Amino acid sequence: MSIVDAVPTPAAACCSPVSGKPLSRAEAERIAPVLKALGDSVRLRLMSLIAAHEGGEACVCDLNESFDLSQPTISRHLKILYDAGLLEREKRGVWVYYRARNEALGSLAALLAGTGK
Amino acid sequence: MSIVDAVPTPAAACCSPVSGKPLSRAEAERIAPVLKALGDSVRLRLMSLIAAHEGGEACVCDLNESFDLSQPTISRHLKILYDAGLLEREKRGVWVYYRARNEALGSLAALLAGTGK
Repeated sequence: MSIVDAVPTPAAACCSPVSGKPLSRAEAERIAPVLKALGDSVRLRLMSLIAAHEGGEACVCDLNESFDLSQPTISRHLKILYDAGLLEREKRGVWVYYRARNEALGSLAALLAGTGK
Repeated sequence: MSIVDAVPTPAAACCSPVSGKPLSRAEAERIAPVLKALGDSVRLRLMSLIAAHEGGEACVCDLNESFDLSQPTISRHLKILYDAGLLEREKRGVWVYYRARNEALGSLAALLAGTGK
């Protein structure tokens, strides 16, 4: 049996590029926490490991070996990414599997890319 | 006379998308601070205001009016964005002008976009 958690709304799926018209205060307050969640090298590596993993998803059991960190510390970082709307998660048996939320990453990319043209 | 400051190397101009192969620890440690610099709603609005401003650049004197913040606070946020390689700055007469570093934003976008496909 698989249990799919209720997924938070992707905070970044909203906005025009930063170079188009200025972000409103409300938009900036919605997006900044998502960028902040990614603004940590362990969390950035976790996102990257998950996205690059076979099938685009990874079990916590696959991730631990890449870090010199305790399991609770890794779980705390994964929760921050999940709460920011950057990961989906699904429990299968005893393990939790994580998948990158492509639309959230894509929206952030579009936001930043507007200025790079 | 105009004085162009020495511009820090864009920290994000380096990497393959997060979904390609996993970021190395060194790559993640170089990129995370750039995302962290953007992970603040005031700094995100500053980037957006500068990028969307006429000619793609803005004077500090143009930015103050959009915030209920003191000039030193705004200058501190601008310095964080500059130190992260996200802004160029140029002094002209008594004012400092800021411009978004398109290549740094573009690199971050490319990094994040790989997962959104």
